[in-house]
Amino acid sequence: MSEYLPPLRDMEFVLAELAGMERLAALPGFEEATPELVSSVLAEAGRIAEEVLSPLNRIGDRQGARLADGKVRTADGWDHAYRALVEGTWIGLANESRWGGMGLPCLVGTAVIEMWQSANMAFALCPMLTQGAANAIEACGSEEQKALYLPKLVSGEWTGTMNLTEASAGSDLGAIRTKAVRDGDSWRITGQKIFITYGDHELTENIVHLVLARTPDAPAGVKGISLFIVPKFLVNPDGSLGVRNDVACVSLEHKLGIHGSPTAVMSFGDHGGALGTLVGEENRGLEYMFVMMNHARLNVGVQGLAIAERAYQQALGYARERVQGRPAGQAQATPIVEHPDVRRILMSMKARIEAMRALAYVEAAELDRAHHHPDPAERAAALRHAEFLNPVVKGWCTEQGVDIASLGVQVHGGMGYVEETGAAQHYRDSRITPIYEGTTAIQANDLVNRKILRDKGATAHAVLVEAEALAGELSGSGDLRITAIGHALAEGIDAARRGVDWVLAAAAGGDARLPAGAAVPLLDLLGVVLGGHQMARAARAAAARLAAGAADDGFLDAKIATAWHYAETILPRAGALAVAIAGGTPTVMAVPADLL
Amino acid sequence: MSEYLPPLRDMEFVLAELAGMERLAALPGFEEATPELVSSVLAEAGRIAEEVLSPLNRIGDRQGARLADGKVRTADGWDHAYRALVEGTWIGLANESRWGGMGLPCLVGTAVIEMWQSANMAFALCPMLTQGAANAIEACGSEEQKALYLPKLVSGEWTGTMNLTEASAGSDLGAIRTKAVRDGDSWRITGQKIFITYGDHELTENIVHLVLARTPDAPAGVKGISLFIVPKFLVNPDGSLGVRNDVACVSLEHKLGIHGSPTAVMSFGDHGGALGTLVGEENRGLEYMFVMMNHARLNVGVQGLAIAERAYQQALGYARERVQGRPAGQAQATPIVEHPDVRRILMSMKARIEAMRALAYVEAAELDRAHHHPDPAERAAALRHAEFLNPVVKGWCTEQGVDIASLGVQVHGGMGYVEETGAAQHYRDSRITPIYEGTTAIQANDLVNRKILRDKGATAHAVLVEAEALAGELSGSGDLRITAIGHALAEGIDAARRGVDWVLAAAAGGDARLPAGAAVPLLDLLGVVLGGHQMARAARAAAARLAAGAADDGFLDAKIATAWHYAETILPRAGALAVAIAGGTPTVMAVPADLL
Repeated sequence: MSEYLPPLRDMEFVLAELAGMERLAALPGFEEATPELVSSVLAEAGRIAEEVLSPLNRIGDRQGARLADGKVRTADGWDHAYRALVEGTWIGLANESRWGGMGLPCLVGTAVIEMWQSANMAFALCPMLTQGAANAIEACGSEEQKALYLPKLVSGEWTGTMNLTEASAGSDLGAIRTKAVRDGDSWRITGQKIFITYGDHELTENIVHLVLARTPDAPAGVKGISLFIVPKFLVNPDGSLGVRNDVACVSLEHKLGIHGSPTAVMSFGDHGGALGTLVGEENRGLEYMFVMMNHARLNVGVQGLAIAERAYQQALGYARERVQGRPAGQAQATPIVEHPDVRRILMSMKARIEAMRALAYVEAAELDRAHHHPDPAERAAALRHAEFLNPVVKGWCTEQGVDIASLGVQVHGGMGYVEETGAAQHYRDSRITPIYEGTTAIQANDLVNRKILRDKGATAHAVLVEAEALAGELSGSGDLRITAIGHALAEGIDAARRGVDWVLAAAAGGDARLPAGAAVPLLDLLGVVLGGHQMARAARAAAARLAAGAADDGFLDAKIATAWHYAETILPRAGALAVAIAGGTPTVMAVPADLL
Repeated sequence: MSEYLPPLRDMEFVLAELAGMERLAALPGFEEATPELVSSVLAEAGRIAEEVLSPLNRIGDRQGARLADGKVRTADGWDHAYRALVEGTWIGLANESRWGGMGLPCLVGTAVIEMWQSANMAFALCPMLTQGAANAIEACGSEEQKALYLPKLVSGEWTGTMNLTEASAGSDLGAIRTKAVRDGDSWRITGQKIFITYGDHELTENIVHLVLARTPDAPAGVKGISLFIVPKFLVNPDGSLGVRNDVACVSLEHKLGIHGSPTAVMSFGDHGGALGTLVGEENRGLEYMFVMMNHARLNVGVQGLAIAERAYQQALGYARERVQGRPAGQAQATPIVEHPDVRRILMSMKARIEAMRALAYVEAAELDRAHHHPDPAERAAALRHAEFLNPVVKGWCTEQGVDIASLGVQVHGGMGYVEETGAAQHYRDSRITPIYEGTTAIQANDLVNRKILRDKGATAHAVLVEAEALAGELSGSGDLRITAIGHALAEGIDAARRGVDWVLAAAAGGDARLPAGAAVPLLDLLGVVLGGHQMARAARAAAARLAAGAADDGFLDAKIATAWHYAETILPRAGALAVAIAGGTPTVMAVPADLL
């Protein structure tokens, strides 16, 4: 079976042509990010993905993480792989150098994360969560907290977790019951958290838990939640480890996939209260979490892309090797990659993967601009764009990832259903991505309420206007494929407008159930169209390179052909979704719940 | 967690209103099938599904089937459940009474199969395969073979298997290498078969293998394959068991799902050759298999429906119990079934399940008419319709089943990813259905080549003309929901015509890769539209009952609302698929295989 090969060629194309890497590198703070350094970082990260992480992917699936004698053991080789990340300062790739990071753009970090997630999603969650914890402390912690925790998290000497969910508080964090009571300079935390990724393990000597809890007399709901740092081992002021804190992993979940990632039930304060320190001010915990949300959700969107890429490579490898049947129009039995329907599936996977990669990387670049551009107006515009894309990248890429992993099984036929092949693991692993870090419905809710209704559709329409200009430009091309892309994009934009405007009108009408019922189809629609916009940009860039006389080994022409496939097969879904939004939303509640 | 409840209400509605149960019961041979008997058969089958089979579903998943000391053991309780089927003559439900069967229509058998597959798909494969083997022998065997094997298979005293696939002969059965050499009145079979469902087990004292093999000097490819009966234990002329035959299960597959079903690698003839008898004539094996194909594929399509129904019930049960968040437009936290997006998912599941049930049952009824109608022209017309529907029911219902099982996981949020919940099992189990008994591509190939191109689209267009008449009738209704259904159906039919006509034109153009590349999207399109046609018929029937003054507890009105939801959210996909067929097919091969 084929192992993972980093798609560096496409990554570098997207960085250069779609995400504006060159302009990013010119921003203050990114002086290090020269083209040479970025290329060598990607190549080396790809080597680690291919040679260190990927070979452990199936071992992790088979062995899983195990809890025994109060300790959580990860799969064979996990510790070695983790040390490789620490030794290369990989976890702090995008952190500031004063905390020991490399200070590279989030865009580069996103490409690196994609490769690690493709290679071994269950493993790569550990550094991903650690980066998230570091970013939260960097953004919201006190100087003392930063000094105490950041160097250890950025280096990877310790790992980090996010402790949000409770049995009765999943999508609704306002229902959290974990308590925090002041005890001198510290707080005593008691409560149980579930679904804590890498909640416990033996990879590092300490684990830094970020915990949402409620202080006495806090207001009800989401406005009464505070954020605490609760280390597994208390940390002395000099950074050395103190005694074990009152926090324990009481069980691990038996999950559909990502078996190698320990998903813990964590108990805080069984023996008097786990000691923690408050991050920022009381009752602002959810706000601090939202600071992190863009990166965290982007990263999960990238997981959708990454598992799709891995499933694609697996299916393509099988399709090239497996000889079966005589395809239509051919005289001999051939590898199944020559069968039109197998090719159709592979093209559909490839086209959507490239669209997802472009969309996710563009969001990452916008986040970099939002933090590093010297002009406040540019920063604000970049943040608006990134925040608009954020739920789409998270929601759409993860839903596509599940579908693409399923197609990967299908390409294998019966062999895809046998676990030894590996295709089934991607199908199982992918299924968590539209759920955690906010389900697709939560993303769609964010998209509709915060990103569309709040500014009366201004950002959405601005994004569509920009795409429309490109569609018009392409429609006049001499290459019939590019003309077709322009026409299909224009129709997609038209459908997106109808969808957005319907939701705006429905919200104005006062029945809040209507925009809520249309939210996921609208997210899907915008994913289809914005992905199509990126593919159209990619086709234009490839055509421009060719027109400028670039030597092409087929990559640039294939990029145009892939964008054409996307335009003719994926973009038409936008029209169906617009109809379903307008006509279908009123039917959503048409059957009473007791008659379902 | 909710267990399975047989959806008898909807089944009886479909039988009566859409599949023409009353007219079927009037056909010669079906005199037994009175409304009272059919109702009591369904109720009793439902009781077995609910009380006997469903409680074993998770046990089978966890324990799986195991091979030890040369014996295959099924999960705890499997033997008890199997005996319950034997004691009720359930396996021979649709077989002739002279072999011990009940002589009921395939339509009733289909409803029974649906319930068993919903309750426990891994278990229900065993009687399903046994019925298939019995039907093959009934249709193609000699009188001696029938007398020897049929009573035992029909009673369930022995089980049956289908041995088709080999390591290098999956979708392409022409590549089969298993050999059969004449030895007196018998044949000696040698070769290895893979993916043999219930290839070995201890549930019965004998197993009847139907084996495809090649005789010496047989023509190459599919025209040189013969069919043999190869029992696990040889059968003496008086029906008593003789010595063990030279056939053995050498291993079981470790699969993504249906763990309770042993999927065996079977070795024939390791010690000189397994003894078998030829069915019919040499080199006509594949033709005999095709006799079985309609029923076998219908049954797998029903598995897609069945797993979708189970996943729906599971998700609905969870959505009614799980309290989380305040839905848009409500003041209090409520069960998540009140959240518009959860309701949208449930409605989408429900609408497609009802469409699948109608489509599958209509095909079953047509197969009954094709075998029992006294008028040869009616028989031929019914067979044509059934054969047209066959690949659509198999391909579309199984693909929908996978999607619906995935939505079932999504409704559960994080709990869906935990195996204990049960939603994940449906997601894993469902994934085999678009693969075995011919992948979706194989179904689509059958649809395009045998069911559309062969008669130049005559059957396809006749089916669409009938649907169009209904669309016109509904468009004039006074109920706005029904008017909307009529309009949406008319647009769907229009899209279906464009798809069919494009494929006809492409085939006439001579590039065989074009119809092959368009085949799966066309199957999907026809599934969407023919499912929509059935839902429109259902809405008309419900409205007619209401207009006739039928007492309604909400079921009939919900049926209309569900058809409306289907029309507004699922039918619009037809237009997108028609565009993808016409514009997208030429892009399928646009990137050379080495540049994928």
